[in-house]
Parts: sequence; structure tokens; C-alpha cells
Amino acid sequence: MNSPSHVFDQAVSLRPVIGGVFSGQTSPAYQNMVGPFGGVTGATLLNAVLSHDELLGEPVSLTVHFAAPIAEGEFEARARPIRTNRSSQHWFAELVQGAEVVAFATAVTAKGRDTWSTTDASFPEAPAAEEVEQTPMRQGAPVWTRCYDMRFIEGALGGQPSENHPSESLLWMRDEPPRPLDYLSLAALCDVFFPRIYIRRPKLVPIGTVALTTYFHADAEQLRQLGTAHVLGHARGLHFGKGFFDQSAEVWSADGRLLATSHQVVYFKE
Amino acid sequence: MNSPSHVFDQAVSLRPVIGGVFSGQTSPAYQNMVGPFGGVTGATLLNAVLSHDELLGEPVSLTVHFAAPIAEGEFEARARPIRTNRSSQHWFAELVQGAEVVAFATAVTAKGRDTWSTTDASFPEAPAAEEVEQTPMRQGAPVWTRCYDMRFIEGALGGQPSENHPSESLLWMRDEPPRPLDYLSLAALCDVFFPRIYIRRPKLVPIGTVALTTYFHADAEQLRQLGTAHVLGHARGLHFGKGFFDQSAEVWSADGRLLATSHQVVYFKE
Repeated sequence: MNSPSHVFDQAVSLRPVIGGVFSGQTSPAYQNMVGPFGGVTGATLLNAVLSHDELLGEPVSLTVHFAAPIAEGEFEARARPIRTNRSSQHWFAELVQGAEVVAFATAVTAKGRDTWSTTDASFPEAPAAEEVEQTPMRQGAPVWTRCYDMRFIEGALGGQPSENHPSESLLWMRDEPPRPLDYLSLAALCDVFFPRIYIRRPKLVPIGTVALTTYFHADAEQLRQLGTAHVLGHARGLHFGKGFFDQSAEVWSADGRLLATSHQVVYFKE
Repeated sequence: MNSPSHVFDQAVSLRPVIGGVFSGQTSPAYQNMVGPFGGVTGATLLNAVLSHDELLGEPVSLTVHFAAPIAEGEFEARARPIRTNRSSQHWFAELVQGAEVVAFATAVTAKGRDTWSTTDASFPEAPAAEEVEQTPMRQGAPVWTRCYDMRFIEGALGGQPSENHPSESLLWMRDEPPRPLDYLSLAALCDVFFPRIYIRRPKLVPIGTVALTTYFHADAEQLRQLGTAHVLGHARGLHFGKGFFDQSAEVWSADGRLLATSHQVVYFKE
């Protein structure tokens, strides 16, 4: 399904070492201000879970903790099921450099089941992706931003704030170059939203995501059918204070299906 | 600050065994359909973190995984810092019965800092708690619901759905009997919201929270000042399908301060 030569696949690729233990290395293409883009770190931890021999089902939730700066170079990724139930599993995964845990994650996977289904979140009104120009990245933007095609409708960095909500962004987004959507790239896309504090306030202060939780609503087949289409991202901040803020986001397909919801808490300096 | 004789304090109380290891037992007062009320399980895991000798700071985030049914009786709670930074810590905690991990959590704690602060989430319009009658619990409601005073403004179980949102609830809530608010009771209050699927659809099907993430915006002093006042809870479902749904909620003080935001993914049968 994925082209192994895509820069994203290279970035999240893992070589099996022994049961549940993998080795990998950071990708220069996804370099952020300090260490790699968090979305790729989360996708790498999810990849360790999805690559585990004992995997049951597909991702339901993923919580990633960004515990320490990740150095450029090699790392070990380890995953283990903490609990396996009849149709679901609870996971722990960690990214290790030297003797240090630099990031870790918990996840739930479950066998897909057909059940009653409905969406209560509101699909935002937006012009089609083809009608929105690709937003040029500002000079000095981190390298990883070149790996995404972002088309802002509202709440671009340095642009006018949205009339609806002071820390909201609405944008079409996809991998650059285009890559068929799957759980790994969807997990990373959930972290593409710029820190809400930069949208809310013009001052650029040091920030860092501390923890990120994503709930996956689409199944693998739905994602496969979307191919390389843009997805619509909608993010907003909730509260800023005590050196942290939180953000909530939804990721939609163009035809209004909710693919994932995602929440994160972010450190900021002042 | 807390009366040790309050039923909530009894439920979350832990006896130290050895560094980072505690023993506790489930409380009959918080019994749910199967096992204890998840809010109390999460608060117990948070208590293990907050009782750890090496604790740095106050809670920023808590993610609880409900991995397996919890049997009535004794359990062991273990907490360990995975990473300690200069002003923050990343934690793992687990609840063990026999050789089984029945629940586990990750958390971030951090030293409080004064920074720029603002709230972008909307404080919902609501009559004062004193003007809303306590909602009587339905016959057959789980025992734990008697440990909370809930005053529904919108989206009560079996009531009319909200005009704003089909799976929304708005209610005043506090411990019953009243107990001064702190991080532990706030963590539990974030799980008081009835499953959104029961609000959305009249059919009562088996459900169970799988994972719950809470971001704490209030500091300990703010919580202390609120004393035993009711807090305003506002919850809504986002998507239902594949046997799971997710819910997002905010908990506010009566004077409009956002105390916590909380998200969970819940299993449902059909």
C-alpha cells in the first residue's frame, strides 16, 4: 500500500531486533526546532505496536508522551501488550536512546465490528481543497513543514484570526509528496496543527507538545479508499495558563466522514 | 484538607508498601455495573503518582486505561516516574490484582508557573446550581451515582435531548456528601458524565470506558478556594461507530474558570 521510498515511510520505518523490539532512526526531513516533528515520533511508536507479532485489530486510541528531547540518529522502539482481551488490546510502547526513554505511548487496538454509527461533531464548511491555494511556509519554518501540503482557510500562522474562534485553524492537509493515507500518516497529521498559542498571540515563545491523544474513527479500508486526497483539519485551543495550553482537533474526509479526533497539551515558556 | 472519613477519600486511599508501591481496596460505595466507577479508579492511580516520594509539581495531564474488569477487594497500585525533567515529570502507574494489570495510567506533573493565561472554550450559560433541583437517580442506577449530587440542566438520562447538540449534557455536580475539591475528586468528576450513547439513543447497551484523558487547568490553590461548591460539567459525543464512541467534556467553576478538560473513548456493544 505504501511506497517504501516515501520520505514518511522512511521516517517511521523500523527494523525488527527481537520480539517487540525494533530499531529505527530519526529522519532529517522531519526535523523540528528541537528533535523530530512529534507527529512522526507518535507514528513511529504506533508503528511499533502495529508491527508487533501479537497485534489484535486496528488502532482505537493512541496517547504519546514527549518525555525528553530526541537526539538525531538511532533509537530503539519497544512495544508490549499490557493486556489482551477477547477483541481488544492495551499497549505500552517506548522510544529509547542510550538508557533514556525519550518518548512513550499507550494505545488501544480492537477488532473492527459493524455497529450503529453516527457523527455528532460538526463538519466545518470549507471550499474544496482544489479551490484553496497551498499556503507558502514562512521563512525559518521548521524543515518538517515541507513534508506537508497545507491549505489554510482560517487561522494561518501570522494571518488574520478566525472570526468564529480566536485560536481556531481550518485547513486542508496531506503528505507532500502525496502518499496514500493510513493509520500511521493519519496519526502524524493529527499533530500538524501549529501550536494554538502562535495563532492566538503574535509572540513566538518556545513551546513543546507534552502529551497527545488521538482517537481513530476510520477503519483501514476507509483510509485506503481516501488514497492521496487532502483531509480537512480543524483545531482550536481551549485554555492557556500555568505554562501549558490544550488543543482539540478533528480530521475529516472531504465527504464529511470524521476520521480522527485528537487532543494535546503543550508547554509554553511565558 | 480532606476529611479522611469521607467515602471518596476511603475509596482512593492507599497504604505505602515500599517506594512507589501501595495497597488499596475497592469501595462498595462506588460500585458500578461491573467493577468500580472508572472515575475513582483513575483518581486512585493519580493518588499513587501524587503519593510518590519523588513527585515534582502538580498534575497537568492524566490518561487512564481501563484494561480489564476490576474485582471487588484488594489491589496493588504502583507508580514510577519514567522521566524527570527540570520542571516536569512523566509518569506510569498501574493497578494490579494477582498477576494481572487491570488498569494503568500515564501522567504529566509540572511545577506551577505564572504565565499569560486566557480561556478560549465557551463558558456555557446555565442557571445557578441553587436554582436547579438535584436530579433523582433512576431505579436500578449503579450505586456510585449516589456518591454525586447531579443537577441536570440539559441532557439528563431519559430526558429530552438538548436543542443545541444531540449528545450534549450540561449539569452541576459535586461529591455527595459535599467534599472540598482537589485534584483527585476533580479527576473523578471528569468521568461522572453518563455514556453519551445513552443520551444519544434510548437503547441501553453494555458499555465501558476504554481510555480517559484529562488535562488539569486549575492549580491546587484554585481548587482549594472552591471548597465544596458545585462545578459545571459540559459533555458531548463526537463520533459513534465500529463499537466505540468518543466524548469531550469541560468542567467549570461557577465563576467561569475552566478547571479541566477531559476526553474519553468508550466501548459499546451494538
